[in-house]
Amino acid sequence: MRLVSSFIFGFSVCILLKTSSGFAQPATFEWQPVAPGVWKSVVGTSDGVTPLGIAEVKPRLDGLQKLGDIAFPALLGESVHEKADGKTLLRFPLKPGEQLFGLGLNFKTVQQRGTIKTLHVDHYNGKDNGRTHAPVPFYVSSLGYGVLINSARYITVYAGTGVLAEGKNAPPEMNRNSQKNWNPQPYSDAVEMVVPAAGTEVYVFAGRNAMEVMQRYNLYCGGGTLPPKWGLGFTHRTPTLFTDEQILKEVAEFEAKGYPLSFVGLEPGWQSHSYPNSFVWDSVRFPKPDRFLAQLARKNIRSNLWINPYVSTHSPIFKDVLPYTGSHTVWVGRVPDFNTAPARRFYKELFSKQHLSVGVSGYKVDEVDGYDNWLWPDVARFPSGIGAEQMRQIYGLQFQKMTDDWFRERNQRTYGLVRASNAGSPALPYVIYNDYYDHRDFITALCTSSFAGVLWTPEARSSKTSEEWLRRMQTVCFSPMAMLNAWADGTKPWTFPDVAEDVKAVMLLRMQLLPYLYTTFAQYHFEGKPPIRAMNLVDGFSFDERATAGSLNSTENPYAMAVKKDIKDQFMVGDYLLVAPLFAGETSRNVILPPGNWYDFYTGKLAGAGEVIAISPGLAKIPLFVKEGGIIPMIPPVLHTPAETEKLPLTVRHYGKTEASWTLYDDDGQTFDYDRGRFTWTKLDVKKNKKGELTGSWIAPKDLAFHYTTVSWEFMTR
Amino acid sequence: MRLVSSFIFGFSVCILLKTSSGFAQPATFEWQPVAPGVWKSVVGTSDGVTPLGIAEVKPRLDGLQKLGDIAFPALLGESVHEKADGKTLLRFPLKPGEQLFGLGLNFKTVQQRGTIKTLHVDHYNGKDNGRTHAPVPFYVSSLGYGVLINSARYITVYAGTGVLAEGKNAPPEMNRNSQKNWNPQPYSDAVEMVVPAAGTEVYVFAGRNAMEVMQRYNLYCGGGTLPPKWGLGFTHRTPTLFTDEQILKEVAEFEAKGYPLSFVGLEPGWQSHSYPNSFVWDSVRFPKPDRFLAQLARKNIRSNLWINPYVSTHSPIFKDVLPYTGSHTVWVGRVPDFNTAPARRFYKELFSKQHLSVGVSGYKVDEVDGYDNWLWPDVARFPSGIGAEQMRQIYGLQFQKMTDDWFRERNQRTYGLVRASNAGSPALPYVIYNDYYDHRDFITALCTSSFAGVLWTPEARSSKTSEEWLRRMQTVCFSPMAMLNAWADGTKPWTFPDVAEDVKAVMLLRMQLLPYLYTTFAQYHFEGKPPIRAMNLVDGFSFDERATAGSLNSTENPYAMAVKKDIKDQFMVGDYLLVAPLFAGETSRNVILPPGNWYDFYTGKLAGAGEVIAISPGLAKIPLFVKEGGIIPMIPPVLHTPAETEKLPLTVRHYGKTEASWTLYDDDGQTFDYDRGRFTWTKLDVKKNKKGELTGSWIAPKDLAFHYTTVSWEFMTR
Repeated sequence: MRLVSSFIFGFSVCILLKTSSGFAQPATFEWQPVAPGVWKSVVGTSDGVTPLGIAEVKPRLDGLQKLGDIAFPALLGESVHEKADGKTLLRFPLKPGEQLFGLGLNFKTVQQRGTIKTLHVDHYNGKDNGRTHAPVPFYVSSLGYGVLINSARYITVYAGTGVLAEGKNAPPEMNRNSQKNWNPQPYSDAVEMVVPAAGTEVYVFAGRNAMEVMQRYNLYCGGGTLPPKWGLGFTHRTPTLFTDEQILKEVAEFEAKGYPLSFVGLEPGWQSHSYPNSFVWDSVRFPKPDRFLAQLARKNIRSNLWINPYVSTHSPIFKDVLPYTGSHTVWVGRVPDFNTAPARRFYKELFSKQHLSVGVSGYKVDEVDGYDNWLWPDVARFPSGIGAEQMRQIYGLQFQKMTDDWFRERNQRTYGLVRASNAGSPALPYVIYNDYYDHRDFITALCTSSFAGVLWTPEARSSKTSEEWLRRMQTVCFSPMAMLNAWADGTKPWTFPDVAEDVKAVMLLRMQLLPYLYTTFAQYHFEGKPPIRAMNLVDGFSFDERATAGSLNSTENPYAMAVKKDIKDQFMVGDYLLVAPLFAGETSRNVILPPGNWYDFYTGKLAGAGEVIAISPGLAKIPLFVKEGGIIPMIPPVLHTPAETEKLPLTVRHYGKTEASWTLYDDDGQTFDYDRGRFTWTKLDVKKNKKGELTGSWIAPKDLAFHYTTVSWEFMTR
Repeated sequence: MRLVSSFIFGFSVCILLKTSSGFAQPATFEWQPVAPGVWKSVVGTSDGVTPLGIAEVKPRLDGLQKLGDIAFPALLGESVHEKADGKTLLRFPLKPGEQLFGLGLNFKTVQQRGTIKTLHVDHYNGKDNGRTHAPVPFYVSSLGYGVLINSARYITVYAGTGVLAEGKNAPPEMNRNSQKNWNPQPYSDAVEMVVPAAGTEVYVFAGRNAMEVMQRYNLYCGGGTLPPKWGLGFTHRTPTLFTDEQILKEVAEFEAKGYPLSFVGLEPGWQSHSYPNSFVWDSVRFPKPDRFLAQLARKNIRSNLWINPYVSTHSPIFKDVLPYTGSHTVWVGRVPDFNTAPARRFYKELFSKQHLSVGVSGYKVDEVDGYDNWLWPDVARFPSGIGAEQMRQIYGLQFQKMTDDWFRERNQRTYGLVRASNAGSPALPYVIYNDYYDHRDFITALCTSSFAGVLWTPEARSSKTSEEWLRRMQTVCFSPMAMLNAWADGTKPWTFPDVAEDVKAVMLLRMQLLPYLYTTFAQYHFEGKPPIRAMNLVDGFSFDERATAGSLNSTENPYAMAVKKDIKDQFMVGDYLLVAPLFAGETSRNVILPPGNWYDFYTGKLAGAGEVIAISPGLAKIPLFVKEGGIIPMIPPVLHTPAETEKLPLTVRHYGKTEASWTLYDDDGQTFDYDRGRFTWTKLDVKKNKKGELTGSWIAPKDLAFHYTTVSWEFMTR
């Protein structure tokens, strides 16, 4: 006992120097402006490998300058960091009522304040716990700023949960024995993070609202990707062991039945050896790949090849790549370390020769996310010396960047699928997909993708009922990639006869909307506006403390009310189109309409104005609403994305009763010549004439980068 | 392009020095013997804070010496470690067919080979992913060895999943396109771990089988806890705002109705202020705590107080403790850092005065596990300088050790409840409980607890049906703490009238079995044998590669077959009693009987021998089987644990047809005098007389540490 006591005494003297309020004072950040409205701070020793570094982001300064200067977010001036136990700790203040969005591609909630995540690239497994395909360490505040941790570490984020003992906003103590309103989650006034590394880079993005923050983030990352036009058509993936002839037959079936198709996806069986992969065509199923791809091309149909990066002994590059692979295998395939130049070179040479040069248009990059049971473990070593944790966080991102570069060198745009991404991805031409299959959660992911700088597809694979099939196909057609991914079970758009025509109608509507969608992606590229937008990115939904401080009701102030709920089952496509999907089993739903008048897309009738409406729209159509003054340019219901040389008549719909104008983007649709100024923005102008009637006008550019012949105006609201 | 190319070249030269087979050679371990059959190795710079250090384990060298010397497990000679990216990587080889157990208190599976976990103290949330109440970094092999990582870090364990590219057991590559038996989980020949720290201590425990490994582990940790006798009786927790009078009335109700009760639990309302806590009695509900506790004691009933460690401003120690609390709060309560001696001292003074000295018998230590939304975040700082990660891993363990010390100083045993533990816990007098409530998974946790060196209670709280209630109460009575924890909803043992008598019967059976249970815990203490044992700890269930190499069938070789399955719904209590619970909705089940004859506990009839039997036992009783030669000492069905001075007649049951003997343990049942030799082991001997009839004999010691008057022998198998 005595021994223990004397030890106690000695120890207590020592630590008396540190009282609870006497922890070493954490340091404030030194923010350096790096672009208009963008600041950077380096804390401690930053890792050599970062997401933005791997993505080689090239900020679009033109777009950032157009957004203009803006002050550093005052609230973030109180942010601090410290080093402890070999880790870097970060703390960013929050205000009451402030909402947070982002923290990667989430599937359950859009609003993230009050959540805890350890950001870790992985397949999504049903919980928004940070393990997801794109765990982007970036959050956006409703107060108009964003914070990015540019680190490829497993960062733990406490998004307004931890409660500092001596913080100035410390909540009051309560007695659970006597106070019924005792709060299990007392008020937290900060986002806190653990970056398990000796340092990190931190970026701050300012904005007048959440949208402007996302614009700055996307523009800083190079502007959003602008897909080739064919990428926005419809795509279907064929059964894995199909031959070239079988694929051509299936393509012909789409055509014969009148279902659109812009590109087909080939699953692992296109290769001679897969899981692990040879990366070369199977000579039996595809004796002449170039001829086969040319046959598709003549029908205006592109191709996409499934791969995962893990190389088989049967691949011609195996021996060359071998020294540049990691210590562990994935399905017995070697794991190339693309941080070594030779690995990149050998892949480029083989893929260029085998795929790009014979006409392959893109890739589906599988299995770069997880899951842990078959991916390399965190004990794996890689020849470049990069740790397994960082490798996990950047592998998918790096593969996107590498393949995009190959296509860029050919001045050819690609648009593919990938299972893993991270910060810095907006400019990369990939859409995230996965194996999860909850329709509602898929739509929530569409919302959250807009805060993560990534694209996501709620692909359709199969359904138990025709109702579910139609509901899924409807949302697929309002997503960045309209994909049927039924190679495994063979579901076709027409599989359920009772909804086959309705499925066809929405697929054709997707094709009709291509001019609107393409312009929406051009906004992503040039202005940084996400093509799919969570409602919280819409004007009137950005948080206003004063507006919500008073009493609210759903009639007078629905949007302010709405920010207090999580809006995760409706979203915007571009500037005008509000999509409010229904799910199997539903015959009605509520729709939250932002301020101003909103009109039914199909009829042009007024649907409501800044209110919550209840709709019972029937099965045939997906509910779509258009904003007052909305201008929607459309082409005829084509079966394939128009060829570069093809010109089509345009129908421009106008909704509402007010004058409006919108600019339509166009270019050649397939090259990077737009980077050299080869594009057109055409003003679509709706004005009232002397009689007070709405009339439309445009001045069509005479340019190879313009593909419309005539325009007819449809004033939908009478 | 050129720039990139030249960079590529320069880089490739540089990294050509490292081929995939040319990673820096990991180091082998240097194993130092620390006890018979126990070795230790220190890798890199070990943390100052470790679980074994916090638990202050004092190896029971007497028990270890009795087990004797044994060679270092040859297989582990090939274990290696290396340092990378600031982390310590460990690799321990595995053989084909080898099974792994342990890795903490798991709820879904007993066998752990093929799983991946990040060990992290937390409430259990439905997945065996490493987040659990006792994520003990220790695994046991069916080949007879155990590996303990003595680290308070979030260790990631790949228990036979990662596949080394150039390992000597590398599995063959396959082609998923053509080979139907393509394996998504290729063969892995190692356990690999990431310890996110600059070093760690590693221990190896040898054994002739899994049981002997567990014995060495438990003995090295000080031997298992020996609860006070009252701890093994029945316990009930009273509604949180009950007064002393209401509790006494409820206690009287148990007595009047004939249901046993040995200690009552008081929930937060015993305090003047809780969540956070004052730690002092509420003067309205408990005006005279000493009188109240004396009233209970007179009925031979002990008390247990709920607490969590987070201190309120209303506590008399608040100001004193304040300098020794962490940077963040839990429910606005300050978090004491018990690594500072003053925090320990102030708690000891208050708790001793308020609780121990007035007769409190133990604690229920809540909320030391998680969950993340209300516990301190990993950015928290503590005055002792210990990082939040390590604090999380050891907090519950440390609180157990601290409170145990207080009782030890009084030469008074305690037995309580806790939500968090870790390695080094066997000697600590706490049983783990939680909020999860899946009956099946609760039973699996009973199995896995035996490989984690912890105790676990599948407490009953409420049930939807009388059937479920009875089934839950039956298993509660065959667990380390027979607890009704229905303070919130008020369920009583007799709440469901149609099963009230059956519930009473099994509760009384629990009391009758106290001599058997107490000896079983003495085996835990002196020999290291877990009181509740997974079937894989039973002779005949330890893995034998040769036995399983041939063809198996459930009739001839059931136990060998069984090791290939996960046996998680039956378990042993002590040496003889096999418990095969049923769950609501079931009327029959299979039971795997180990080699030798097994008998029905209730009838003594032969049930089977080394085979899988199907039983349809009816609702009234929980199926129990006794091994050939099983000796079960029992007392009359008492309502309270006998007082120290009380002596009772003993009935000794014998099962089967063979001679047998067993030693019955006894001592004063409440002090630590057994540590000074004040205990008795009494041989219960069954021999055949000249007529071939079984007869029993004993020589009852005349000792204060012996509490039985007479013995009557019951030969159950006729």
